[in-house]
Amino acid sequence: MTKKICIVVASRANYGRVKYLMKAIKAHPDLSLQIIVGASTLLERFGKAVEVIKQDGFKPDRSIHYVIEGENLVTQAKSTGMGIVELSTAFQDLEPDMVVTVADRFETMATAIAASYLNIPLIHLQGGEISGNIDDRVRHAITKLADYHFVATRLSRERVISMGESPERVYNFGCPAMDILTNENLSISNDTMPTTPRGVGKPVNWERPYILMLQHPVTTSYGQGFAQINETLEALKSFSNLQKVVLWPNPDAGSDEISKGIRQFREKNSKDINFSFFINFSPENYARVLNNAACAVGNSSSFLREGAFLGVPAVIVGDRQRNREHGLNICFADYDAACIAKKIQEQMTIGRYPQDHTFGNGQAGQQIADALAVIDIKLK
Amino acid sequence: MTKKICIVVASRANYGRVKYLMKAIKAHPDLSLQIIVGASTLLERFGKAVEVIKQDGFKPDRSIHYVIEGENLVTQAKSTGMGIVELSTAFQDLEPDMVVTVADRFETMATAIAASYLNIPLIHLQGGEISGNIDDRVRHAITKLADYHFVATRLSRERVISMGESPERVYNFGCPAMDILTNENLSISNDTMPTTPRGVGKPVNWERPYILMLQHPVTTSYGQGFAQINETLEALKSFSNLQKVVLWPNPDAGSDEISKGIRQFREKNSKDINFSFFINFSPENYARVLNNAACAVGNSSSFLREGAFLGVPAVIVGDRQRNREHGLNICFADYDAACIAKKIQEQMTIGRYPQDHTFGNGQAGQQIADALAVIDIKLK
Amino acid sequence: MTKKICIVVASRANYGRVKYLMKAIKAHPDLSLQIIVGASTLLERFGKAVEVIKQDGFKPDRSIHYVIEGENLVTQAKSTGMGIVELSTAFQDLEPDMVVTVADRFETMATAIAASYLNIPLIHLQGGEISGNIDDRVRHAITKLADYHFVATRLSRERVISMGESPERVYNFGCPAMDILTNENLSISNDTMPTTPRGVGKPVNWERPYILMLQHPVTTSYGQGFAQINETLEALKSFSNLQKVVLWPNPDAGSDEISKGIRQFREKNSKDINFSFFINFSPENYARVLNNAACAVGNSSSFLREGAFLGVPAVIVGDRQRNREHGLNICFADYDAACIAKKIQEQMTIGRYPQDHTFGNGQAGQQIADALAVIDIKLK
Amino acid sequence: MTKKICIVVASRANYGRVKYLMKAIKAHPDLSLQIIVGASTLLERFGKAVEVIKQDGFKPDRSIHYVIEGENLVTQAKSTGMGIVELSTAFQDLEPDMVVTVADRFETMATAIAASYLNIPLIHLQGGEISGNIDDRVRHAITKLADYHFVATRLSRERVISMGESPERVYNFGCPAMDILTNENLSISNDTMPTTPRGVGKPVNWERPYILMLQHPVTTSYGQGFAQINETLEALKSFSNLQKVVLWPNPDAGSDEISKGIRQFREKNSKDINFSFFINFSPENYARVLNNAACAVGNSSSFLREGAFLGVPAVIVGDRQRNREHGLNICFADYDAACIAKKIQEQMTIGRYPQDHTFGNGQAGQQIADALAVIDIKLK
Repeated sequence: MTKKICIVVASRANYGRVKYLMKAIKAHPDLSLQIIVGASTLLERFGKAVEVIKQDGFKPDRSIHYVIEGENLVTQAKSTGMGIVELSTAFQDLEPDMVVTVADRFETMATAIAASYLNIPLIHLQGGEISGNIDDRVRHAITKLADYHFVATRLSRERVISMGESPERVYNFGCPAMDILTNENLSISNDTMPTTPRGVGKPVNWERPYILMLQHPVTTSYGQGFAQINETLEALKSFSNLQKVVLWPNPDAGSDEISKGIRQFREKNSKDINFSFFINFSPENYARVLNNAACAVGNSSSFLREGAFLGVPAVIVGDRQRNREHGLNICFADYDAACIAKKIQEQMTIGRYPQDHTFGNGQAGQQIADALAVIDIKLK
Repeated sequence: MTKKICIVVASRANYGRVKYLMKAIKAHPDLSLQIIVGASTLLERFGKAVEVIKQDGFKPDRSIHYVIEGENLVTQAKSTGMGIVELSTAFQDLEPDMVVTVADRFETMATAIAASYLNIPLIHLQGGEISGNIDDRVRHAITKLADYHFVATRLSRERVISMGESPERVYNFGCPAMDILTNENLSISNDTMPTTPRGVGKPVNWERPYILMLQHPVTTSYGQGFAQINETLEALKSFSNLQKVVLWPNPDAGSDEISKGIRQFREKNSKDINFSFFINFSPENYARVLNNAACAVGNSSSFLREGAFLGVPAVIVGDRQRNREHGLNICFADYDAACIAKKIQEQMTIGRYPQDHTFGNGQAGQQIADALAVIDIKLK
Repeated sequence: MTKKICIVVASRANYGRVKYLMKAIKAHPDLSLQIIVGASTLLERFGKAVEVIKQDGFKPDRSIHYVIEGENLVTQAKSTGMGIVELSTAFQDLEPDMVVTVADRFETMATAIAASYLNIPLIHLQGGEISGNIDDRVRHAITKLADYHFVATRLSRERVISMGESPERVYNFGCPAMDILTNENLSISNDTMPTTPRGVGKPVNWERPYILMLQHPVTTSYGQGFAQINETLEALKSFSNLQKVVLWPNPDAGSDEISKGIRQFREKNSKDINFSFFINFSPENYARVLNNAACAVGNSSSFLREGAFLGVPAVIVGDRQRNREHGLNICFADYDAACIAKKIQEQMTIGRYPQDHTFGNGQAGQQIADALAVIDIKLK
Repeated sequence: MTKKICIVVASRANYGRVKYLMKAIKAHPDLSLQIIVGASTLLERFGKAVEVIKQDGFKPDRSIHYVIEGENLVTQAKSTGMGIVELSTAFQDLEPDMVVTVADRFETMATAIAASYLNIPLIHLQGGEISGNIDDRVRHAITKLADYHFVATRLSRERVISMGESPERVYNFGCPAMDILTNENLSISNDTMPTTPRGVGKPVNWERPYILMLQHPVTTSYGQGFAQINETLEALKSFSNLQKVVLWPNPDAGSDEISKGIRQFREKNSKDINFSFFINFSPENYARVLNNAACAVGNSSSFLREGAFLGVPAVIVGDRQRNREHGLNICFADYDAACIAKKIQEQMTIGRYPQDHTFGNGQAGQQIADALAVIDIKLK
């Protein structure tokens, strides 16, 4: 009998990280895949990732709205609560043999708690990492709830074990987000890429150089996001001859401040033809955009993960990733336009870095699926 | 300005553990106490502990129902979710400077998550313990969410630190549940004790010997509670000349099985004049009942904590406390009536044990309050 | 293509009323049946009606816990809210062409609101009745939300129309609860009936005379249920030579008071061999119990509906049904033991009444199903 | 002792309607005012009306987030459910003697259900109206739940009574939204008005002519909002010499389609200097904007209510208000740009209409407060 593995996909970022694992599970003769899509994957405002998921041939077993609107600290907590309520009902009906949850967001926590309390073995991906902000406590708390850990780096494995987890329950096959990088053609062209999603901003010429910006709110410095994003945008503005591709942030506490900053900047600089604003890409297209960027700027963990693998020069702004394991492609800047601009310039002068496989070699999805098939899954 | 400390009391057991801390905070010139009562403290079926809390002179700032009925794994998870939703609203309004949560139950988790996501420093009591069941993962997950830890034993402190917490954030003043034992007169008499609460079973003569029984469901062996409780009750039955005082379990997944077992046993043995069934005691009365028991039987952690302090001989049945730190007063038995009866007999032959201060010396409440007053509370 | 009809069964009483409609829909070539079971149908304490539903060959599409524990006014409201939340998710997934809801309980309201807001045509059964308590406002509010009305009496049809509903949307085929009465063998025997469910109270000899008691809390006089039930129980006690079959109440605000009254009465009268306490019957067995009662006492609407059809003498205690349409088999008594006892005596002297088909002739299920199949269902 | 009256303000539109009632209650010696702010009043995206409420000198007793993000049919239903859950907790704590709810939105329903189930007398404002869409069923359902009705027109009073409500419980003092119109200076000037809120679009010269547009989604034709708004915007575009002031819609199911339509139109016509986009006004400023419009276009009920009082020529687009009682100032147009433009032209040619007091004479707030003070409030 096949083992039923339930994956909860609750944000566009989540999906990019597990897509290749989902493919491997779906194709595996001893595993059967259950999919729950929820939270911001269902929301227009965040690009409705559920559509991409369906286009990729996956059929969700349940679709659940559980984002309480507000993008502040209170609504983030309440969304977690509502997620637990409805995921519990779904797990009860679907009766998976195990549940997979990824990383450290509030939706991840909801999945982890629902599965734990239902005595369903919990598989956690990307445990043991350290970023230096509130995500750390959430990530480590999930580690303590999880029964099996599929970490992304050797150092992460050591950390998970040092927190008291049994070594035989901690696997390091790298991060399945890397799989996209080895399995897809990452060259970029105007023929295949969307150029002006949602009609906002100027069309991008993907075949010409551009800087990529993606900056999320930092929940522990809630209230300062507006000022923070302004510094980055001002820095970008100084590169007047280069195209700038700006992505909207994830739906976290503080996202509305970031969004407001971007919106106001856009209004004030509506004549600057070199800014383009995107809500969402498919995981493959995002990989292409990152791969071909002259420089990546902001605080997305993808710059440290996929960016390292690809060797994309990146400038990390602020604290959000300050303590995270990283490769040579990363340099750090404070929330200061001049400082950020200087670092971008330095990185572009250096150009492409050599590949770095700290976060995996791009085979994780298949290896994790194979392991799930053979492990005699037991609650710890 | 005084620091506002919010304590969420969500079960009768919770209250017994923090009552002396609440008293100390309330009396402290630099602290002000906020109280939220919720979950089973509001429920008739579990003795409505909120009434005791009010009689003790505390005035709840909020009363919140968040138990989803069912007492199974699913409803336990959903109750956690609903707790998060409404506690978040309450914290937003009350704006505490810190939130205190105790131990490892699902209500504790709800408090921990709501406070963490609202960036309110979280104080956790009784972290670092090990009991050998699902509570462990919840307790350790809360440790990773908490900013300050007030543990109950030296060994617990070591465990919390070994999970990666900063030593300067981990305090060991013992468990404030012990404070009742040193501050109250624990002699027992028929004049002051309730003898037949809720009119169920025979009146107890507290001045004559009795065995105390308190056995909770074990959530990781959900579905076996009915058989488990029967063994213990059968064992008690063999002590036909002794009074037996039986308490109803906490509202956990599986409690309905335990309750059903007790109810059926009671119906079948309605002529046995030596069984009495109680839903609830005030913390002081519970301390008296424990202190004067000839033997305590079941799996309540109070047998290992307060029981050790008092030297009450106890027989722990099954796995629920198997791995928990304990003193000489404890012996273990499997779910087997004959085995349990034999151990009870042995324990009663030995009689009272010497006092054991592993879990504190009865001054914890005041010491914790003093520490909270002086610490420069910061998110970790 | 068949029309998908979703029925939400949320209490044991609900199920008895729609069982024959469910059978008719399931058997109809142009209709397909979707079933959601929720609320107290899933709860042990209320007899877990979901088991009966499954034994009858129905397969629930969703099982949802949404009862907030407490049985008071607040938790009743909150349960309604949680019902709306999760039923909305279920309706979104199941995509029914219409939703059927029955009568006037809080679970009914949850179904009505979820369906209305999702623009799914709402079919309401048993609208237009008047009972003289809070249920009236809920029932009439649901009438205003519903798109089609299948009422149970001619007078009810007139009331629904007088509230402004289009006559062509109001059908009177009688109440489908009557269908059980014509389709099942209603004789009773000890061979086929459960005699001591859940081991509580004395076994019943169904072949000897008995009085049936079923009394629910009256939510608008919340807080007085304990006193009210005592009067009825005392009245019953005076019929010392007759068996008394007592059913536990529905899970409404105030049920815990009723239950407490019954429990205390039972403890105090544990030697009275003529009382038996039952939590639940299958709809057929309940029909048998009612049909063969020497007298029915309490405030269940079944006494006025099925009771009239069968001609069972009944004494209605208090206000709960005071203004409801009723037949000759009904007389009313205040909350007063002497008065109740006198009326019971009078009714038993009269004995069986002639059949009364005010609430239908027992063909409603099939007629409603046929109508749903041919109506061109449209939102009003 | 004063009567405690709790008003739940759950949207910017709500607030405009009850502001003068709130003032009258606050000032009344026999009444005390409790305020709960919730749902979209707390949201940045909808102009955070809570800030206006506070600036007006009101102090909310509770702030509750209960909007589930999505703006579709499912999330609208779920928001209603969450509203019920948390409002129940708040009512339990605040113990009002009555609760006031306004009109027909989903937040209104949440308030109505929570109060009804808690046995708190419910006061409904603006019952008995007919608009010709789903709001009707919600409004009438609330009428059946409410204990007292303060309607806005004579015809509405008749309708409420014809639905079966006791005439002595139905008062017609007109709509308190009119009170602003008589109590405030409604002239407009650039000195006092915001000209470019949130930095979007061109500054308005309020002292020059402008057309006002406000068009909400129609929940019963969910999915067509994008096409519908486009027709109106295209019609406006043809008045190239006039300023156009466009307001964002309420957060209903379908609002995202309307918003998307406005956003795309704005991008495509970013050079058209005559469009300005506003999220929110204080009630007084909205009254000024309406009062001084050359023509009002869309489907806001304020055009039929305040618009009639003020004599503002208005073009109602589509079905949303088709059946609502209205004055001479209103004409109707289909979703067709040419038709809409033609009607706007006709209305502007006619110019200002005479005042019409169908919806009250601007004294309602005080009269309702006086009535609440003297009525012997009882559940119906």
